[in-house]
Amino acid sequence: MIIVMNAGASENQIAHIREKLEEWGFGIHFSQGVERTIIGAIGQKRSGVMESIEAMDGVERVVPILQPFKLASREFKNKTSEVKVGEVVFGGEELILIAGPCAVENEAQMHETAYAVKKAGAKMLRGGAFKPRTSPYAFQGLEVEGLKILRKVSNAAQIPFVTEVVNPMEVELVAEYADVLQVGARNMQNFILLKEIGRVNKPVILKRGLAATIEEWLMAAEYILNEGNYQVILCERGIRTYETATRNTLDLSAVPLVQRMSHLPIIVDPSHGTGKRHLVGPLSRAAIAVGADGLMIEVHPDPESALSDGPQSLNLPGFESLMREIAPIVQAIGRKL
Amino acid sequence: MIIVMNAGASENQIAHIREKLEEWGFGIHFSQGVERTIIGAIGQKRSGVMESIEAMDGVERVVPILQPFKLASREFKNKTSEVKVGEVVFGGEELILIAGPCAVENEAQMHETAYAVKKAGAKMLRGGAFKPRTSPYAFQGLEVEGLKILRKVSNAAQIPFVTEVVNPMEVELVAEYADVLQVGARNMQNFILLKEIGRVNKPVILKRGLAATIEEWLMAAEYILNEGNYQVILCERGIRTYETATRNTLDLSAVPLVQRMSHLPIIVDPSHGTGKRHLVGPLSRAAIAVGADGLMIEVHPDPESALSDGPQSLNLPGFESLMREIAPIVQAIGRKL
Amino acid sequence: MIIVMNAGASENQIAHIREKLEEWGFGIHFSQGVERTIIGAIGQKRSGVMESIEAMDGVERVVPILQPFKLASREFKNKTSEVKVGEVVFGGEELILIAGPCAVENEAQMHETAYAVKKAGAKMLRGGAFKPRTSPYAFQGLEVEGLKILRKVSNAAQIPFVTEVVNPMEVELVAEYADVLQVGARNMQNFILLKEIGRVNKPVILKRGLAATIEEWLMAAEYILNEGNYQVILCERGIRTYETATRNTLDLSAVPLVQRMSHLPIIVDPSHGTGKRHLVGPLSRAAIAVGADGLMIEVHPDPESALSDGPQSLNLPGFESLMREIAPIVQAIGRKL
Amino acid sequence: MIIVMNAGASENQIAHIREKLEEWGFGIHFSQGVERTIIGAIGQKRSGVMESIEAMDGVERVVPILQPFKLASREFKNKTSEVKVGEVVFGGEELILIAGPCAVENEAQMHETAYAVKKAGAKMLRGGAFKPRTSPYAFQGLEVEGLKILRKVSNAAQIPFVTEVVNPMEVELVAEYADVLQVGARNMQNFILLKEIGRVNKPVILKRGLAATIEEWLMAAEYILNEGNYQVILCERGIRTYETATRNTLDLSAVPLVQRMSHLPIIVDPSHGTGKRHLVGPLSRAAIAVGADGLMIEVHPDPESALSDGPQSLNLPGFESLMREIAPIVQAIGRKL
Repeated sequence: MIIVMNAGASENQIAHIREKLEEWGFGIHFSQGVERTIIGAIGQKRSGVMESIEAMDGVERVVPILQPFKLASREFKNKTSEVKVGEVVFGGEELILIAGPCAVENEAQMHETAYAVKKAGAKMLRGGAFKPRTSPYAFQGLEVEGLKILRKVSNAAQIPFVTEVVNPMEVELVAEYADVLQVGARNMQNFILLKEIGRVNKPVILKRGLAATIEEWLMAAEYILNEGNYQVILCERGIRTYETATRNTLDLSAVPLVQRMSHLPIIVDPSHGTGKRHLVGPLSRAAIAVGADGLMIEVHPDPESALSDGPQSLNLPGFESLMREIAPIVQAIGRKL
Repeated sequence: MIIVMNAGASENQIAHIREKLEEWGFGIHFSQGVERTIIGAIGQKRSGVMESIEAMDGVERVVPILQPFKLASREFKNKTSEVKVGEVVFGGEELILIAGPCAVENEAQMHETAYAVKKAGAKMLRGGAFKPRTSPYAFQGLEVEGLKILRKVSNAAQIPFVTEVVNPMEVELVAEYADVLQVGARNMQNFILLKEIGRVNKPVILKRGLAATIEEWLMAAEYILNEGNYQVILCERGIRTYETATRNTLDLSAVPLVQRMSHLPIIVDPSHGTGKRHLVGPLSRAAIAVGADGLMIEVHPDPESALSDGPQSLNLPGFESLMREIAPIVQAIGRKL
Repeated sequence: MIIVMNAGASENQIAHIREKLEEWGFGIHFSQGVERTIIGAIGQKRSGVMESIEAMDGVERVVPILQPFKLASREFKNKTSEVKVGEVVFGGEELILIAGPCAVENEAQMHETAYAVKKAGAKMLRGGAFKPRTSPYAFQGLEVEGLKILRKVSNAAQIPFVTEVVNPMEVELVAEYADVLQVGARNMQNFILLKEIGRVNKPVILKRGLAATIEEWLMAAEYILNEGNYQVILCERGIRTYETATRNTLDLSAVPLVQRMSHLPIIVDPSHGTGKRHLVGPLSRAAIAVGADGLMIEVHPDPESALSDGPQSLNLPGFESLMREIAPIVQAIGRKL
Repeated sequence: MIIVMNAGASENQIAHIREKLEEWGFGIHFSQGVERTIIGAIGQKRSGVMESIEAMDGVERVVPILQPFKLASREFKNKTSEVKVGEVVFGGEELILIAGPCAVENEAQMHETAYAVKKAGAKMLRGGAFKPRTSPYAFQGLEVEGLKILRKVSNAAQIPFVTEVVNPMEVELVAEYADVLQVGARNMQNFILLKEIGRVNKPVILKRGLAATIEEWLMAAEYILNEGNYQVILCERGIRTYETATRNTLDLSAVPLVQRMSHLPIIVDPSHGTGKRHLVGPLSRAAIAVGADGLMIEVHPDPESALSDGPQSLNLPGFESLMREIAPIVQAIGRKL
């Protein structure tokens, strides 16, 4: 770490920091500039040390040198990890399409969707049984009944499914039914939930929080990895900015950045990322071209009667049309569907 | 709600919406402008209706008219609620100071802090036993041991305490020890946690999420109120913006806005709101002047050895000095300490 | 426009608004809901009317219905405009590559760049003679000397060039030399400059301001169009968000949104949009896939000796390599290079 | 500056940087950590050097140590500068109130306002003759006619006035009439305008750009100071964030931060900062309490007929009431009105 002292820092203040650093076993380099002193401290990173130094008198700021995540980092593993769900592989040559409604509403809806999206080329079904909603008065999901519908339909149509888990007490329950667990954007820093998910042996899709930096996102993944579950797939779904023309601002730079910083596979959700049906096609094409390992698309047989997120959902012919639209880009980028 | 149609919306599309609105029992007003049709729909709000309409063909956007929160709204109750913790009253004439360290580290630290801050004028102690930390490798708190220390010190010094709860499974446990529960910024939309807290009979301080709008914040309060717990105190603690000179951007406009939109009392946390010790004094003065009902201040007997948030913590003489600094402002605004 | 009254608005307040609206010649619809009154006002839009009403007592908010831009809107012209620069056409079938250094440094640098980027497939040269720099101590450009170099090199290599104009007094001067004028992000709302540019007969590339909404951007274009210059090309170059891993957050959703709201062609600048050389390739692919009409790429023969923006510049082999990288995407999206 | 190398940087890459730094006359310190090499470079700052190094192979990032502004910095002058406008002093003991309408509309309006705000305690009049408006169809100001009205009314009522200048070609013209020039938020990085203003001998109020960091704001001031005009007053007027409940987010932390980083006086504009009349009072109190040297308040005799910014303007009794409201806070903070 680099410690930048105030222009007016006293010799006593500098001496105090030197003493502390030596006590903690750091190697120290001093650089005495014209206007201020810079201290380089080299050694084993230790929780809280940076904060302690930042709190000391005479310190202007402390600049960390090492990235705070380890297991999620590209330095830990220098090739993209493959996360497998049966025969579906995230992070491999194939571009994986996940499709389905925001919320599971009934068996007929899921049945129709599952067969249609599979036929069109999707490799995984999505559907929410437990829904985190901004309002307590909004539809909160079918809960366990929803899980049962998903399992039944998934088995019948032979397509694995992913569903969100919102309650740390229900991680095991959801893991009994689901092929893949999802952590939603609002729960990205729900560390209790992350730890529970780290203890089950199921792949997990970790959505980026709507005000999370890429570093915080990788730190959230680190919570899961640190508990022993290495099957983490990241999902960019848009961040909150001042722009109101879209529901969120889809940050596609995050894809190559994550691929440089981490070995975890990364997919993109253009449905939440834009909030508008007519933007799903163009941003799906862009997400594939930028190098994403997959897409998560909201599809509903009848969007205008959807209990959640209708405005951003494609209908079934819309999804088929999307598949045709993306096919040439998938090929151009050297991947397969 | 107001439905704005696309410029090119067809008569069939308009007729379809009319039909649906009538089916759902809405009163309808049509306004045929030169360029587009506007539909006003009046009736009982119902979950999902707005979304369904937004998903219909020919619709450009739907403008809600009513605020989505009810129990938290000023229209529900047209005077500020008082939330009582023994003799401490939030939302009354008195300005309430809450002080203490980010994390409980040991009994001596809490003991020293409790007596000192009480003597200086604080009415409530704070201290974290369960810490939500960005990194899994950072100090996570003393957990139950921390609660026990807090209870013991609180009883001895005769000052009530607030502590954060992060796990829905531990709400009852924490409520056994604590006088006031706290929901941290990262958990503001952890709806499972909010519901659990809504079911205990304890006052709760609900911090604003770091990318939450004021409306979303009041909706989070609504989750707690809707379960039957009306003792909610809001706490502004800064939002995430592009500015990096401060840890967060303290949004003091939120105080009078909340006071106009809601009846819930509201306090301000200038320590997290700025992340810098030298800003705590000026922003405390501003928070009082803008009309906040209280302040939450990070105080540590030895900030440079703090296990968390040292750079923004005052030491004990610093807190006494803060109390002297704010006294004239408290008086000027017509409140008491 | 829709006028939403406060829940407690008095009959007098409502009557006052009705009177004013009638005086201004608006058609009026009243909707009396359970909780509040909504007034629909239909008529010719007039500057300041919305603001006047918003300032009246009893008014909660005013919701505009019509978009504030006219000449830039898709409703004004329902197909993408072609902007021609000699044989180069923006908004047509061809994807246009613009390449060159941030700043013109000397003739040799521009000469080498011009021939190399043209050979690799670029259709236009870029280079700054007048540089708007955050610091008064940074290199401010070669000014007129730079324009002369650009013209000479452009003629020799037979490739048109675009350069930024920053001073309204120099619009005519720059227009004498340049084939295309550029308005930089910091000047997007420099209305004096926009008006001057609207009065010359030269194509102009209008970059999005770093905190501009899409609506404000189209309003800035409207300033140019309104003076009679219809040759406007929009350029998305990233917006300012809380994320610090990239210099800006490239908002690729802006491309299809602009294409739906406006008839103006739109290109993307992934160099400024990301600020990192290793992200230029992936984001170029994404920009093409999302539907942009062109790309603007920073290229420098020797980035590490560049006087400006070296970290985001490609060198000449890097640009050739980019051209090979994007070719399959260009084809997949049905365009030509 | 500190140069952080990539984990995998080669010895050749490191040697290349060492060579360049030596060539440029920097003192160099190497720190060889377990995972990467850090290079400290000490010497005269030189434009472009940091960028060059950032562009070199093997470099992860470059961390600047010195602040990029000089003349505006607190290190340059370690006490707050006083900027004098006749007997009005910014940065002294007195808290300065500036009041008046957004736009000059006619002489009667300005006459009535000037006498009323002066009587209530304002020390300076404001009013826009040249208005930068988002839409080309909105009222653009009375221009020279407005300047004449301002001068006439100012002389009659014996109160100096400030007015915005938007065009570099008109700086001298405006300076002939006005007592203080204003640079609006949209022009904060209009460097041509800043340089022109730096060449006249008039005090200037420099508003913060709506997406400007504090560092960029001080760099904009540096442009003016660097041309020889030292009479710069900064004005915080809110920044653009995701929150839509206010027009901007007033960043009051900027006041003590600027006071620590710079010697320039700083005032606050709560009218633009919030965009809502009912928030002007509370945020004025907060701005004074946080330590601002003055306030700029929009006041209009008849806000609902204002040609600009009516919703955030106080009427004349409203301004008198504001003066009474702030008086105790001014006293509490140890200042005078």
